[in-house]
Amino acid sequence: MPNCIVAQSGGPSSVINATLAGIIKANQLNPVYGHVYGAINGIEGVLQERFVDLSKMTERENLVLRQTPSSALGSCRYKLQRDNLEDVEKVMSVMERYDAETLFYIGGNDSMDTVAWLSEYASKKGIKNRRFIGCPKTIDNDLMVIDHAPGFGSAAKFIATTALQCWQDITVYPPSRKEVFILETMGRDAGWLAASACLSGVVDLLIVPEKTFDKEVILEEIRQIIEERSKCFVVISEGAHYADGTYIASGEARNDLFGHAVLGGAARALEQMILEAGVSPRCKIQELSTAQRSHASEQSRVDVTESFNLGMSAHMHSMDPAFTGKMVCLRRRKDIEEYDVEYYAIDADRVANFVRNFPEKWLLPNFRGVTEEALEYMRPLIKGQPQLIMEHGLPEMTVPYYMRDCEIEKK
Amino acid sequence: MPNCIVAQSGGPSSVINATLAGIIKANQLNPVYGHVYGAINGIEGVLQERFVDLSKMTERENLVLRQTPSSALGSCRYKLQRDNLEDVEKVMSVMERYDAETLFYIGGNDSMDTVAWLSEYASKKGIKNRRFIGCPKTIDNDLMVIDHAPGFGSAAKFIATTALQCWQDITVYPPSRKEVFILETMGRDAGWLAASACLSGVVDLLIVPEKTFDKEVILEEIRQIIEERSKCFVVISEGAHYADGTYIASGEARNDLFGHAVLGGAARALEQMILEAGVSPRCKIQELSTAQRSHASEQSRVDVTESFNLGMSAHMHSMDPAFTGKMVCLRRRKDIEEYDVEYYAIDADRVANFVRNFPEKWLLPNFRGVTEEALEYMRPLIKGQPQLIMEHGLPEMTVPYYMRDCEIEKK
Repeated sequence: MPNCIVAQSGGPSSVINATLAGIIKANQLNPVYGHVYGAINGIEGVLQERFVDLSKMTERENLVLRQTPSSALGSCRYKLQRDNLEDVEKVMSVMERYDAETLFYIGGNDSMDTVAWLSEYASKKGIKNRRFIGCPKTIDNDLMVIDHAPGFGSAAKFIATTALQCWQDITVYPPSRKEVFILETMGRDAGWLAASACLSGVVDLLIVPEKTFDKEVILEEIRQIIEERSKCFVVISEGAHYADGTYIASGEARNDLFGHAVLGGAARALEQMILEAGVSPRCKIQELSTAQRSHASEQSRVDVTESFNLGMSAHMHSMDPAFTGKMVCLRRRKDIEEYDVEYYAIDADRVANFVRNFPEKWLLPNFRGVTEEALEYMRPLIKGQPQLIMEHGLPEMTVPYYMRDCEIEKK
Repeated sequence: MPNCIVAQSGGPSSVINATLAGIIKANQLNPVYGHVYGAINGIEGVLQERFVDLSKMTERENLVLRQTPSSALGSCRYKLQRDNLEDVEKVMSVMERYDAETLFYIGGNDSMDTVAWLSEYASKKGIKNRRFIGCPKTIDNDLMVIDHAPGFGSAAKFIATTALQCWQDITVYPPSRKEVFILETMGRDAGWLAASACLSGVVDLLIVPEKTFDKEVILEEIRQIIEERSKCFVVISEGAHYADGTYIASGEARNDLFGHAVLGGAARALEQMILEAGVSPRCKIQELSTAQRSHASEQSRVDVTESFNLGMSAHMHSMDPAFTGKMVCLRRRKDIEEYDVEYYAIDADRVANFVRNFPEKWLLPNFRGVTEEALEYMRPLIKGQPQLIMEHGLPEMTVPYYMRDCEIEKK
């Protein structure tokens, strides 16, 4: 009986592990693969033949995995380059040696490029019985084609919940205390995360990468709001930038290993402008940083369920020998009023290396938030509370496999 | 039938409103006061005669109030000064005019000083039938006498939950990526909040105000941990300081209206030291800022229950005409093994203007965290999940009274 390999890549989210859990569970319901091998640290684990055997996971372990943020198998930022044939040949030979017919790759658009490329290579070389299947994830919600990216709903829920509660906090003092509160979210190129704060109903101003940062207009809006009601609640994406593309965050943006800019500090830059212009005597900043992508304890039930289902769906599709170079996908059902999704598959290269922006038509003029249509799109994605398995008052977590001494022997 | 007044003061927490809800509910169970008047913005609302009538709150409204962070009545930083007789006389005359026999004041140690002082003044002047009763709250857990402060458990739960999940996030990349993660908590003078992160079991180093910041030792410890396992998880209180009392945060600490230093930036200062010393090539920072004190959506069930009970207890005690200048209090039961508390009362001036520090004997050498005894003390305080009333995927919140148009007519 053939085996399969699963790997996780890219930045953490609250529900990547739910997709992994779905693949594992599907193979227990229909054991078409003898072993489900988890690769440690993404494609690096495949290249280095670092595998753990996930086939025998108990139902309880599976439930705990679904509520554990980040990647239990470890992640990587290593990307298979199309001109590096050594790597791709190594992947093929490892799969042959471990009798792995399918490689499931859970990740963002860079990972979908890997899926497309491996599939293309195998087909070109006439390598039979090797399938490469992508499972989408990213808190940024900037993947093409798919209605929304698994991981976004949970991040949005945490951001909106935090916004709602911080607003209760900052409005508590009398009007004599004028104050601007600035909530900074992730979102280098896309404003989905910042926009999700608007679900709270408390956001006065929204600054996203899709709309050029206009200092004059923004300061004037803040001045008006402070005058009217003494407190102003601003949400800003880390990727807020001027017309020429310069980030407001800082001139010294570093690049990560994929050449993407690493940001942070947009809120502090805006604070500086506000204080210097005398628009408000006080500013308070909340940078959501790492917490926004790893707060699985408040994950959206819709999000975690869909992520699990995408894993199941990927496994089920993989029984078709011709199913390769694909990404499992979801779209909203249009045949009913209530929210529900249906699962299908698309070519992975339709997703790879593109970014879907927050629609400009969903932004209100003068940075005053988002339209009702935008809220309607986002609202169902944050619904439902997780039923957490707790231990000593904290959510139980899967001990990451990359920290356990449980790798199988190399073949 | 006489009335009573309730006011809230000081910085927000996740459960101050639960204490308010307890007072309101107790008066519905035993209506000894004709009206429960809520003062808008603490003692300022009493002085300005800004009241709302809370007597008729429904059970559902009461439940929502318990899950709403911050102070639904608004807060203040105005403190009655002992040499300002005008203010204290105004309080007495307002209480007489509104036929308010009791003033419940929910707050921290500054508020307990107000309770003590008003009570002392009334007694000195022979003013009969006026009672002043304090209900404790503070996320900082630095109140004297009481076993633990209402608000601390919920903040601790959020901090430990966030630490646990951020650790899953930062450890996800291969060992070749060396990284220090720095979690900054509130805690100007006391390290309770930072120490609570240790409940997660993932903290490598803990830096609190109770132990002088020793740069050399700390950098050496980080160097060792990075060498051993490539990632290092540090938790630091905003109030971390050198032997001479200088905060590591910055030289420009501002003072708030009570003369307390307003801090923030300890993590960034430490990051600078780490990068300059070359101890790690990367640092990531998570400042918990406002979120840590207002994240009621993950409040501890134990904490919210105790806070509600303290409000009930205050109301019940207030039926005794001699009960004034007191703070309702709780202590752990010693007659049983499992965790439970009993309620009693103490003189408010035993709490006023003192700070209880995190015990030094509970700190491990070389900033390596806390002892098992410390964990045993904290563990029961974060237990139990709230049963939230949700709306569109977000916890329902009480619309703050200071934003509603519902104040009663002045008398």
